Amino acid sequence: MSAPLATTPQILAFDVFGTVVDWHGSVAREVEAMQLGVSGNQFALAWRAGYKPAMQRVMSGELGWTLIDDLHRLILEQVLAQFGVTHLSEDEKAHLNLVWHRLAPWPDTVEGLTRLKSRHLICSLSNGNLNLLTRMAKNIGLPWDCILSAEVFQAYKPDPATYLGVARTFGVPPEQVMLVAAHQDDLAGARACGLQTAYIERPLEYGEGHAKDVSADTANTLHAKNLVDLATQLGC
Amino acid sequence: MSAPLATTPQILAFDVFGTVVDWHGSVAREVEAMQLGVSGNQFALAWRAGYKPAMQRVMSGELGWTLIDDLHRLILEQVLAQFGVTHLSEDEKAHLNLVWHRLAPWPDTVEGLTRLKSRHLICSLSNGNLNLLTRMAKNIGLPWDCILSAEVFQAYKPDPATYLGVARTFGVPPEQVMLVAAHQDDLAGARACGLQTAYIERPLEYGEGHAKDVSADTANTLHAKNLVDLATQLGC
Repeated sequence: MSAPLATTPQILAFDVFGTVVDWHGSVAREVEAMQLGVSGNQFALAWRAGYKPAMQRVMSGELGWTLIDDLHRLILEQVLAQFGVTHLSEDEKAHLNLVWHRLAPWPDTVEGLTRLKSRHLICSLSNGNLNLLTRMAKNIGLPWDCILSAEVFQAYKPDPATYLGVARTFGVPPEQVMLVAAHQDDLAGARACGLQTAYIERPLEYGEGHAKDVSADTANTLHAKNLVDLATQLGC
Repeated sequence: MSAPLATTPQILAFDVFGTVVDWHGSVAREVEAMQLGVSGNQFALAWRAGYKPAMQRVMSGELGWTLIDDLHRLILEQVLAQFGVTHLSEDEKAHLNLVWHRLAPWPDTVEGLTRLKSRHLICSLSNGNLNLLTRMAKNIGLPWDCILSAEVFQAYKPDPATYLGVARTFGVPPEQVMLVAAHQDDLAGARACGLQTAYIERPLEYGEGHAKDVSADTANTLHAKNLVDLATQLGC
C-alpha cells in the first residue's frame, strides 16, 4: 500500500521494450523457430546489447537521426555475423528485423493499460519509432490514447527533450506526468526533469537464466509488481 | 458501387475537422449555451474563417511554428472583439478555446472508423496539435491506431511534408496511403504527392443555412456519403 500521491498524474507515459512487451521471449522464440542453429536466448541478448551503443552513435553525432527499425537492422547484421549465420536472404533478414513489431505483451499488460486508461491519459514514450510502436499496438491490442516516440522529439531517452516533450505536448507541468518503466536509469532521467516515476518489476526481462535486480528505489513515486498492480495502486 | 482499386491502401489517413467531427455544430452549441448575446452559428463561422489565414502567417515565416491551440486562441481574441464580447475572464476564454478538444463526431464516425480499422491502419492527419487530437479522441472514442498531426511534421497541410510524412512514417510508398477528407483542396494536395484519395460528403459542415457543394470530383479514388459508406466501399 503506497501513501497517497502529492499530485495525481494526469498523464502516464510508458517505456515499452521490457516494460509493456517481452522483447527477450518474443525474439528468442522467433529465432528458435527459424532453426538457424543458434540459441534464441543468446541471439536475443546479443541483439538487444547492441541497442544502447547504436543510439549512442546517433546522439554523439556520428550517425544522423536514425529510426530504431534501421538501428535494429544495423545491429542484426553484426549479430548474424557474430553467430556465423550467413545464408539468410534479404527478405528473410527484413522479416526477422521486424520481429520488434511483433513482440508479445506481458500477461498483465492489456488489462493493466485498459484499467489505467479509465482515469489517465496513457501514451507510449519509447525509443522505438512510430511505425514500430503503431504496428505493435495494433497487433496485440495496446489501447494507447496516443503513441509518442523518440521519433517525435528527434532525441532518444534519456535525453530531457523526450521527458519534457511529453509534458509540453499535453500542455501540463512535468509533475503531472508519470513515467512508467522497468529500468531505473530511464526513471532517473525522468525524475531529473520533474516527472513522477513508477518502477515496474520485470524479473524475466532477460529470460529465465538471467536474474534481474528488481529491488525498490525509494526515489521513485511508486513501485509495482506489474501494470495491474499499478492500476490498483492508482485506484483504477 | 465503385470499381476495384488498383492498389488497396494499407494506411488510411483522415482529415479531422469537418471530416470526422462536426466543428460547426459543436462550437455553435457551446457558444449559444454561454448566452453571450451572439449567434453561435455566426461565431463558429467567424472563428473557423480565421484558421487558414492564421496558418498562412506561420507558413510564410511571419510567425514561428505555432500549435493550433495557440492559433485558435489568437483568432478567438479577434472574434470576441469583432462580436463585441468584452466581459469574459481569462479562465472563461481558456475554457472556450478548448471547445476544439470537445468536438462531437458525426453520427457515422465511430462505426465507420471501427469498421475501417479492421482491415486498414487508421491514423489522423490533421493540422490540429497532438494534445487537441488526443483529448478529442479520448473524449468521443475515436479508435485511431496512431495520431499523426502537422505538429509531428512541423508543417501544415497542404504542405507535401505532411502527406509524404505519413507514407515515410509507416514505411510504405505514397500509393499505399489514402487520404480521407471532406475538402477537395486537401485531397488535391495529397493526390499531387501520389496518395490515393477518398472524398467524404459533409453537406452540413458549415451548418443548416450554408449549403456546401459536395459533388464528385472524378480525380478522387473514391467518393463516399460518409465513413460507414466508405467502409462498405472498401469491403470492411
